[in-house]
Amino acid sequence: MKIIIVGATGILGKKVSDAFAQKHEVIRVGHTRGDVQVDITNETSIKAMFEKVGSFDALISTSGSGPFAILKEMTGDQFKTGLLDKLLGQINLVLIGQHYINKGGSFSLTSGILADHPIAAGIALSTINGGLNSFVFAASAELENGVRINAISPNVVEDSPSYFDAFPGEIPVTMDKVVKAFEKSVLGIITGQVIKVY
Amino acid sequence: MKIIIVGATGILGKKVSDAFAQKHEVIRVGHTRGDVQVDITNETSIKAMFEKVGSFDALISTSGSGPFAILKEMTGDQFKTGLLDKLLGQINLVLIGQHYINKGGSFSLTSGILADHPIAAGIALSTINGGLNSFVFAASAELENGVRINAISPNVVEDSPSYFDAFPGEIPVTMDKVVKAFEKSVLGIITGQVIKVY
Repeated sequence: MKIIIVGATGILGKKVSDAFAQKHEVIRVGHTRGDVQVDITNETSIKAMFEKVGSFDALISTSGSGPFAILKEMTGDQFKTGLLDKLLGQINLVLIGQHYINKGGSFSLTSGILADHPIAAGIALSTINGGLNSFVFAASAELENGVRINAISPNVVEDSPSYFDAFPGEIPVTMDKVVKAFEKSVLGIITGQVIKVY
Repeated sequence: MKIIIVGATGILGKKVSDAFAQKHEVIRVGHTRGDVQVDITNETSIKAMFEKVGSFDALISTSGSGPFAILKEMTGDQFKTGLLDKLLGQINLVLIGQHYINKGGSFSLTSGILADHPIAAGIALSTINGGLNSFVFAASAELENGVRINAISPNVVEDSPSYFDAFPGEIPVTMDKVVKAFEKSVLGIITGQVIKVY
């Protein structure tokens, strides 16, 4: 299977890439590093990535960011930056990628626990993740040629201790468990699902 | 109670405005008509509206639009237009309005059934509505001074027959039922809820 992993040079993306690389052809895509580079906030850049990589069987995205700010200090501009990055960026990977993906392929995006477990200053990421979860559900009903799509929604992960204090009461999940969720999405048969790792 | 209704000149907004006007002071806000005008995609315009109206007890939004297009023809630009209108526009009403609202006030936004019941060509509105639902849940935990926030999520409404064919299998809901949902949000005690009218 030929698998594009966007965000492959990040903490989570590297683990996911290493796991799939054991049995599959993995194209590691980063913002400035990796086999191919992409700026997911730029449609031209996304198109150039797909043109360079050619047809593929699965796309995994562990990319996209959003601002942390408490509600009373959050500005519309900050919020917009997040919507255009982690939300629209991952959506554009699908809108454009649907024209390059092989029959029976799959898209696996990353949302996150904040969609339904808010934390202080997490308002933008809650919104983004909630939007992504509804996107994959709706997209699964419209994708053609047996193409599937799921969202992996992780809790705070073991390998990001700097975030632990921001997620009070949450038990950090192992990277292995998150990697397994991506395996379920890519190698399994489900579609339109939010795979919660928490 | 002094209630700002953004979208008051629309099909739904007019019914909601007429209902609340029986017992409350209603400021009807439209894009080009109404007591006050606002462009919710423009932060400067939103600030000007709040400056003009002054402090208030409740804000209801029945405003915002998103594009209808089937997934395989949807472009990133179309999608972005919807995110910046119905999603970010309503969010900005809260981000800015939180600095003008009275203690114990409330925000009531409009999402919709497509968040969890997709229809063909509804992908952008599914995403927008899902984002709004997570937004109100997260925002309710951060708003101060007893300010509440809810989303009203209606099915296709009786008064919009031109949409009936696009919502196969859905039973159109009465406007009265949707108005009641806004009354529950504004006059009740709940917060962080998605009030589903379907």
